Amino acid sequence: MSGEAKSIVLAARPRGAPAPGDFRLETGPVPSPGKGEMLLRAIWLSLDPYMRGRMDDAKSYAPPVEIGGVMPGACVAEVMESDVAGFAAGDIVVGQMGWTTHALSDGAGLRKVDPAAAPLSTALGVLGMPGHTAWVGLNDIARAQPGETILVSAATGAVGSLVGQLARQKGLRVIGVAGGAGKCAYAVEELGFDACLDHRAAADAATLAAELARAAPDGVDIYWDNVGAKTLQAAFAALNTHGRIVLCGMIGWFSGKGADSAMALSAAWRTILTKRLRVEGFIIFDHHDRLPPFLDEVAPMVRDGRIRWRESVAEGLDSAPSAFMAMLDGGNFGKQLVRVGNDPG
Amino acid sequence: MSGEAKSIVLAARPRGAPAPGDFRLETGPVPSPGKGEMLLRAIWLSLDPYMRGRMDDAKSYAPPVEIGGVMPGACVAEVMESDVAGFAAGDIVVGQMGWTTHALSDGAGLRKVDPAAAPLSTALGVLGMPGHTAWVGLNDIARAQPGETILVSAATGAVGSLVGQLARQKGLRVIGVAGGAGKCAYAVEELGFDACLDHRAAADAATLAAELARAAPDGVDIYWDNVGAKTLQAAFAALNTHGRIVLCGMIGWFSGKGADSAMALSAAWRTILTKRLRVEGFIIFDHHDRLPPFLDEVAPMVRDGRIRWRESVAEGLDSAPSAFMAMLDGGNFGKQLVRVGNDPG
Repeated sequence: MSGEAKSIVLAARPRGAPAPGDFRLETGPVPSPGKGEMLLRAIWLSLDPYMRGRMDDAKSYAPPVEIGGVMPGACVAEVMESDVAGFAAGDIVVGQMGWTTHALSDGAGLRKVDPAAAPLSTALGVLGMPGHTAWVGLNDIARAQPGETILVSAATGAVGSLVGQLARQKGLRVIGVAGGAGKCAYAVEELGFDACLDHRAAADAATLAAELARAAPDGVDIYWDNVGAKTLQAAFAALNTHGRIVLCGMIGWFSGKGADSAMALSAAWRTILTKRLRVEGFIIFDHHDRLPPFLDEVAPMVRDGRIRWRESVAEGLDSAPSAFMAMLDGGNFGKQLVRVGNDPG
Repeated sequence: MSGEAKSIVLAARPRGAPAPGDFRLETGPVPSPGKGEMLLRAIWLSLDPYMRGRMDDAKSYAPPVEIGGVMPGACVAEVMESDVAGFAAGDIVVGQMGWTTHALSDGAGLRKVDPAAAPLSTALGVLGMPGHTAWVGLNDIARAQPGETILVSAATGAVGSLVGQLARQKGLRVIGVAGGAGKCAYAVEELGFDACLDHRAAADAATLAAELARAAPDGVDIYWDNVGAKTLQAAFAALNTHGRIVLCGMIGWFSGKGADSAMALSAAWRTILTKRLRVEGFIIFDHHDRLPPFLDEVAPMVRDGRIRWRESVAEGLDSAPSAFMAMLDGGNFGKQLVRVGNDPG
């Protein structure tokens, strides 16, 4: 296939918040698939907070991106040519492709998507990794029970918005934390949260803690921690005995904003001990086996409108770095996507 | 019953490590039991790290001791007179009595001890709360599996020494951390630990982490955290993916020694996330239902010598404050007890 392929590579490792110079656009010819390979054309690229961690040269659950390497990311893509059994031209797939317009694949890690089931982009959001994360965290990690109260940070984000909605469906009381009055109104009015606190309007952790005490007079049983920083500090104060903290992201700390306002480890440890808390980190890549039951339960809810979702779309691969930087700063509203290519057909 | 009764009360709330002036000895007549009451005469008083927390005026799992109130503590005691059904003069019981020679009780929370089964003092140690804590933490909280490696802080203490021995019996590799070469030698030679690190000989957390890396080249699966401080920091570095931290004490922080050497909360949180750790605090008072299976399993091991224990005995109630202060500073070697009264008979 002729034409030009584009990729965004890591130009430099960021210090704190990423800057435009940390990324570089590279162009080249569209690659040709060899024996046992297929050519993919990206339609949607997902931008997710975990990518910030991959830009660091630190030991983590996945190796760091090399300098000059293509930024990692999941895409919904169209199969253009295929020499891989089970995949044919015209198929729609989802999988790790990176920040790129075209890629070759041997099919490993790819999952076929039914284009008739829901809009293609949902395979990266409410029916993709963020949705899967929300479902596993709520059911398997937090082991949420009806009647409990959950506090959800990044409440209008791709993960948080589904955590809150699934928790409501299970009979929990749901309190969100989001940045800005507009997001908070959306959480309550559109997503059905019982309350939502605006962390931008709270000067410090103590202010946020006071608001939380009013919103959750009986305390919090589960804190869904996507952000760390002052929201975590307020959550520690509000958590009930035998509470759980589900730790699946730390966007506030990745961007270097959390350090100043975070409490001391000793204070956190003392609270974990005296309240008998359980703090558990999880990464969705460990929970592939739970994808089918998640899809079985949540896909019908998406189709019939019980679950709502919202997308923030950047146009064109070139816009991925700025959209990513804005997302880390809380500038997106809903699942952040990049439209890399046109829909098929 | 005539005679003099003594108690140790809280005279002032300590700042950091307790000082002699924080305690006061009070004397008075031996109380007379009324209807539905019994009189207890203390034989053994247990000194435990949790008591330090009760001296603070901070929200915790139990209310703080009031200024002027008797210091809390469990005793093995003899029933002297009884108007309580099921208890007769001469019975030996264990329960919360406080730092005192005599007390009245209606029987609530008391458990009868069989004097023929094992030395009376074991009801406060290897077959009492510390042993129960070790057994529940290892089995129910850490969910230890054969072949795993456990790191045990305060390795020769009442809890740690049993954690390590039970872990060895289950087929784990056991690495202790203790203060001083003598304690480390005891852990390896007498208790059968695979290795033991002397945290007093390690200048800082990095030095301790390097020693730990040599002692546990395949990493650590479970960290039994009794102390916080630099041992916790070294443990974070050594923990494997899906590792667990069992948090049942923080003696290092209670005494104000941990704060300086502790890592930042953000660094701890990042490690919990990337290694998918589970950190769980627990308090043995929540696990009364697990006392019978613990005793069923461990009492035979104590009787036949598979489990060893060691006691550090202070003579007379008057010596309790100094023994307690020394224990918080790591000066005891084995379960810290106070001999308050003579054995019966």
